[in-house]
Amino acid sequence: MWRELLPVGRFQETGGYRRFAWTSADAECRAWFAEQAAARGLTYELDRNGNQWAWYGDPEAGDAVVIGSHLDSVPDGGAYDGPLGVVSSFAALDAVLARGGRPTRPVAITNFVDEEGARFGVACVGSRLTAGVLTQDQAFRLRDADGVWLPDAMAAAGQDPSAIGKDEARLARVGAYVELHVEQGRFLDATPHPVGVASAIWPHGRWRFDFHGEANHAGTTRLEDRRDPMLTYANTVLAARKKARLAGALATFGKVSVEPNGTNAIASLVRGWLDSRAADEATLTALVDEITTAATERAERDGVRAEIVRESYTPVVDFDDALRDRLVSILGPGTPVLPTGAGHDAGILSGVIPTAMLFVRNPTGVSHSPAESATEPDCLAGVAALAKVLEEMTCR
Amino acid sequence: MWRELLPVGRFQETGGYRRFAWTSADAECRAWFAEQAAARGLTYELDRNGNQWAWYGDPEAGDAVVIGSHLDSVPDGGAYDGPLGVVSSFAALDAVLARGGRPTRPVAITNFVDEEGARFGVACVGSRLTAGVLTQDQAFRLRDADGVWLPDAMAAAGQDPSAIGKDEARLARVGAYVELHVEQGRFLDATPHPVGVASAIWPHGRWRFDFHGEANHAGTTRLEDRRDPMLTYANTVLAARKKARLAGALATFGKVSVEPNGTNAIASLVRGWLDSRAADEATLTALVDEITTAATERAERDGVRAEIVRESYTPVVDFDDALRDRLVSILGPGTPVLPTGAGHDAGILSGVIPTAMLFVRNPTGVSHSPAESATEPDCLAGVAALAKVLEEMTCR
Repeated sequence: MWRELLPVGRFQETGGYRRFAWTSADAECRAWFAEQAAARGLTYELDRNGNQWAWYGDPEAGDAVVIGSHLDSVPDGGAYDGPLGVVSSFAALDAVLARGGRPTRPVAITNFVDEEGARFGVACVGSRLTAGVLTQDQAFRLRDADGVWLPDAMAAAGQDPSAIGKDEARLARVGAYVELHVEQGRFLDATPHPVGVASAIWPHGRWRFDFHGEANHAGTTRLEDRRDPMLTYANTVLAARKKARLAGALATFGKVSVEPNGTNAIASLVRGWLDSRAADEATLTALVDEITTAATERAERDGVRAEIVRESYTPVVDFDDALRDRLVSILGPGTPVLPTGAGHDAGILSGVIPTAMLFVRNPTGVSHSPAESATEPDCLAGVAALAKVLEEMTCR
Repeated sequence: MWRELLPVGRFQETGGYRRFAWTSADAECRAWFAEQAAARGLTYELDRNGNQWAWYGDPEAGDAVVIGSHLDSVPDGGAYDGPLGVVSSFAALDAVLARGGRPTRPVAITNFVDEEGARFGVACVGSRLTAGVLTQDQAFRLRDADGVWLPDAMAAAGQDPSAIGKDEARLARVGAYVELHVEQGRFLDATPHPVGVASAIWPHGRWRFDFHGEANHAGTTRLEDRRDPMLTYANTVLAARKKARLAGALATFGKVSVEPNGTNAIASLVRGWLDSRAADEATLTALVDEITTAATERAERDGVRAEIVRESYTPVVDFDDALRDRLVSILGPGTPVLPTGAGHDAGILSGVIPTAMLFVRNPTGVSHSPAESATEPDCLAGVAALAKVLEEMTCR
């Protein structure tokens, strides 16, 4: 199962994955999901927002236990972020059935579409639409770097975009959603436990910093005559890092776009994206305010106009207490409970249904990179834990 | 003439020009050149390196006076940089002939291909190849941002790339090359003179700074576990500016490329290009050494590997003394003589034939931008000056 997925959307040059929503690599992953469902005689459904569902039992019966994750990736992402949860879900159901378990509640395995937001800039589009956190109007205004609109990309991939939006009927069928994911940090690595349960997701957001200067010849314009936005950007990158360190939080500029981006032209526009996260919302707000102030002050000094836009924001997510405690009791006392700085579909859905997460140990903590990894014994422990949870919740 | 060229390769969104070598916009400009030659009954030649020539008189007679410039542009460049020199050359020849001048030396008007280097990263490709400063081997290793090799781009545009290289026979025909160009600074703006003569071109070069870090998840990787090359880049940008100011020189980072360039991924690679120039080579070398040291030191602190490559370098160019003095005497005492920080085909060719340049006043000094400008009276003064030079050099 794992071996079939490995080559899809992998770039030879980097060894990383480029499985972006509604591309051909994504379509291959989705075809794989439908095949897995068919091979097991599960009822396959494609919902109006493009999420895939594979049902054991009657989808309409209600109070379903849903397990799954996503198959798309960040640019040059690793093999585990997303796929590990989907593959483990199929394997967990296989294990439960193989040892004679017969679920009395419906079980569904899901692949939520466009979790990473790598193409259209908004993460968790499939779950956000379903939960009604992202409206059809907002989704229709999303465009990729080549200028392709989200609805056109969906239509090109054979998905009718006119039906997207909040899906209460579907959510009403779900009793609980449990997402298994490779840990994206080194919390578990410091413990003897290969699997942990999520407590909360740090609040996080994306802010776009547009610095408008004046294009000019790099070889003839005196330094004092320049309005160079690259200077403002550079200063903001360093300020963000320093202030995040002082706040005990995270701030990252990992994406930049420059116009005209010529070697011998002073930039007219430098656009940088800030990703920032903190343990609580007050800290995050104060941190982003400080970075904004630093950017604005430096912009004035450089003769540059700064425009700062919040592109997305996810408040703190505390997973369902009862479900989290149940998972810990199923997996045994001493099971680590840990927070994460990463967003997930489970976080989005926690606003509308009970959700929980299992994390599988990551020896280096590296994620969103070809170097992302988990050992085979730890992955198998993840499958075993998910199977145990599934069995306890559906066969007892 | 000017009006026909204006719309070619202009981007509506920015108002700037994107006339990159061997693209369709470039082909339109080149077709315009051939039409101008044909309309005047001039002998049209395309040389083996893709430069265009329009001859009055016998090309083989030798000791020709060549005037011209280039038609390509930087990304979102202005209307004047390049085209003003070509259009003024046709207009100057028209003016000489109209008032009864009959050149006794051959005259050629030229369009040197790929002067800006916007597509393949090396400036003045057409004149460098002709002068033998760029070899065929080197040119064959040039590739654009889409991965297209220079010879393939030439072939696609109908130019046989197998014949490119040093063209001594052609250079042997030329007695002098005079390039008219809009000034890319405000030297003339401070004088009552619309036209000046070039003294020298500052030494200048391009250096690529590759900062290799480690891609990782922006939301889960502790600051102290990161190897973030964006920090190294940002610090280098600010260091370059500061050290250039102290040296009385120029240093610019105007082009950046980031991998994987995702909002929630720490960059694995940030590649920035430094353009640096100074009045003399010792100052330039010392400045780039200082910036390199600053980059290397910061890289070590960030756990980042820095690799710095000199992509191009042009030593100081002192234009031919005798030709420069002749131009000043033709245009009258008091004609300003000024240096420039910008590279030109005339600078490349000065190593192999006598060359000179005329500059037309630029009221803002802005260049390589849609805001680049020159007044109509000043442009006409440029044509008149070039016509006078041409007449004095060929009809006396």
